[in-house]
Amino acid sequence: MDCYVSGIGMTPFGTHPNRTLKGLLIDACTEAINQANKPKIDAVVVGNFMGGSICNQEILGAIAANDLGLGPIPTLKVEGACASGGIALRQAVLGILSGEYDTVLVAGVEKMKHVSTSEVTSSINAAMDNESNEKHAGLTFPGFFGVLANRYFYETGASKEHLAMVALKNREHAIQNPLAQFTKSTSLEEIMTAKMITDPLGLFDCSPITDGAAAIIISREPSDVRIVASAQASGVTQMQMAEDLLSLEAVKHSGAIAYEKAGLGPEDIDVIEIHDCFSMTEIISSEELGFFPKGEGYLALEQGRTKASGDVPINTSGGLLSRGHPIGATGIAQIYQIVLQLRGQAPNQVENANIGLAQNLGGTGSYSVVHIMERLG
Amino acid sequence: MDCYVSGIGMTPFGTHPNRTLKGLLIDACTEAINQANKPKIDAVVVGNFMGGSICNQEILGAIAANDLGLGPIPTLKVEGACASGGIALRQAVLGILSGEYDTVLVAGVEKMKHVSTSEVTSSINAAMDNESNEKHAGLTFPGFFGVLANRYFYETGASKEHLAMVALKNREHAIQNPLAQFTKSTSLEEIMTAKMITDPLGLFDCSPITDGAAAIIISREPSDVRIVASAQASGVTQMQMAEDLLSLEAVKHSGAIAYEKAGLGPEDIDVIEIHDCFSMTEIISSEELGFFPKGEGYLALEQGRTKASGDVPINTSGGLLSRGHPIGATGIAQIYQIVLQLRGQAPNQVENANIGLAQNLGGTGSYSVVHIMERLG
Repeated sequence: MDCYVSGIGMTPFGTHPNRTLKGLLIDACTEAINQANKPKIDAVVVGNFMGGSICNQEILGAIAANDLGLGPIPTLKVEGACASGGIALRQAVLGILSGEYDTVLVAGVEKMKHVSTSEVTSSINAAMDNESNEKHAGLTFPGFFGVLANRYFYETGASKEHLAMVALKNREHAIQNPLAQFTKSTSLEEIMTAKMITDPLGLFDCSPITDGAAAIIISREPSDVRIVASAQASGVTQMQMAEDLLSLEAVKHSGAIAYEKAGLGPEDIDVIEIHDCFSMTEIISSEELGFFPKGEGYLALEQGRTKASGDVPINTSGGLLSRGHPIGATGIAQIYQIVLQLRGQAPNQVENANIGLAQNLGGTGSYSVVHIMERLG
Repeated sequence: MDCYVSGIGMTPFGTHPNRTLKGLLIDACTEAINQANKPKIDAVVVGNFMGGSICNQEILGAIAANDLGLGPIPTLKVEGACASGGIALRQAVLGILSGEYDTVLVAGVEKMKHVSTSEVTSSINAAMDNESNEKHAGLTFPGFFGVLANRYFYETGASKEHLAMVALKNREHAIQNPLAQFTKSTSLEEIMTAKMITDPLGLFDCSPITDGAAAIIISREPSDVRIVASAQASGVTQMQMAEDLLSLEAVKHSGAIAYEKAGLGPEDIDVIEIHDCFSMTEIISSEELGFFPKGEGYLALEQGRTKASGDVPINTSGGLLSRGHPIGATGIAQIYQIVLQLRGQAPNQVENANIGLAQNLGGTGSYSVVHIMERLG
């Protein structure tokens, strides 16, 4: 696939009381444009979830083109809950494959910290089906993934300590990442005894509320990093519809399609970003993507295999749990880390990282996007 | 371009107190799928603007795939203010041109009537740049297009009566359209003396608040209607940035690109849907699309040229003004009418309608999408 990365940009993730949604978007885009040596850009795709509901700001595509002086080019925003960023990148890839565009600016952005936690929660719940009785009964996303975790414990023999190992690993990765939201060291004990959010998920098992933006420029023009495969799948929009609670079908499908397109398998991947909205999600998705057999993902944590120093390095950026989770930006921030890894410039650099994979999830497994990328030359 | 229309569907536009956002979406999609003889669908693109802000319902792409039983296919929602529907269709076209998809379901939907007018207005204002002083000063979209109208009167000698002629024509078209929101006959006098919204635009010069959905299935598989060109452009995101208030640059650009792609000019178009969010907008855009010289679009109204029976038939559906304007659905509803015209099955059928054009606008001229379609055989 003739799609290459010509530049990347990312704001620090965290709290930006003095930056607007637009300001964050423009900051990340400007960095990517400068890194790519200001190419002629043919289109802009922005991933964003809550601009309308908590910022009263849509038209982010047109705003980016206008304020960056890119001319009267086609632009749009795409939404697919927490997978909005990954879907935005995929739309840019389709634009290039279609022959309509040579170079596309893709960005993801979210500003969430200026409103109350309950407003954020209410807005996030737009990623559930309004007509489902489970939403009316009060299910939230921590509730959904908490149920999954309890079922996983029951089926596999895993325990809350395995979830804590995910949280600790990702925090230890984030400590090395200057753009991460949480860089304070912690301990397994602090994680295990932290405030319970929804049994068995404690505070450290849940991704935070975050402001931030990330951007990437992709082009037909060859560079040192190539996108080998872009794949997307959808899944159930209500928890009760899942045939097997421990199977995130969209993740499995999107991974299988990506591997087939790339002519690669999980054993070929050197470095991985997985959508760890909750610690539990990282474990289940690491199985769905074929890195471990079903029901055995938690064992890899005991052995440290998913650390940056392990043989299956997952979330070397710190992941959503500790890098932060500005919803629309997350999918692009994953790509940002993979590109740094393939360039040999990443925090928690993995040796000989030649092939990377990023997986971005939305809703109750409603969306999953997988991109596989490779280092050239 | 190997993109053909295999099916269309549309709910009545108006007030649907007993249908949800999802219900409307599914209704329109089901009709299109049935008309297309239930093809294998490879992706879903949904155009929607206010689902998050006034319905607390996002993930419309995944919901459509899930509830329609389409399998784990890629889906997304796209947003570009009032051009969300047209942009959704364009994304579907890119998906087919990319080779990734053979058949794509595209839908547009909005539910607006369940909240107060002030809530709708506030939500619509997300289509302005939050950081512009004009938004803070209280500018709204009727205000923006009212200023344009006054300037147009000053420059050209047109008057409020010309605006009324647009409103009357589109109402007379809508009377024949069973899916239109307003089908009560009116008079030039009633329109001229109606409640002023923002000088010189009265009630009939402004598109209404509407519930509704429309859907279209496009495919690589040949049918009786082909999409000849899909073009999109962006423009200024603040009124004060326009070099010439009477030029909607995005409309001009998108039209010019579409004509070039199609190898056609305005003189080749038999039937037209223009984004008449306000009566003034139809006149200016009819000039920007080359149907009349700049500053002379209003003269065509005196001569009845833009009626269904005229030589430049515009908005034979009733347009946004009288068919209604459920924001995300509008761009697809325009295509619905053009397809009916090309099939010879439209309300206000134009004789020998072989080539049709639809133009969909977003924001203060921030987005414009043009599709040109032709009848085959």
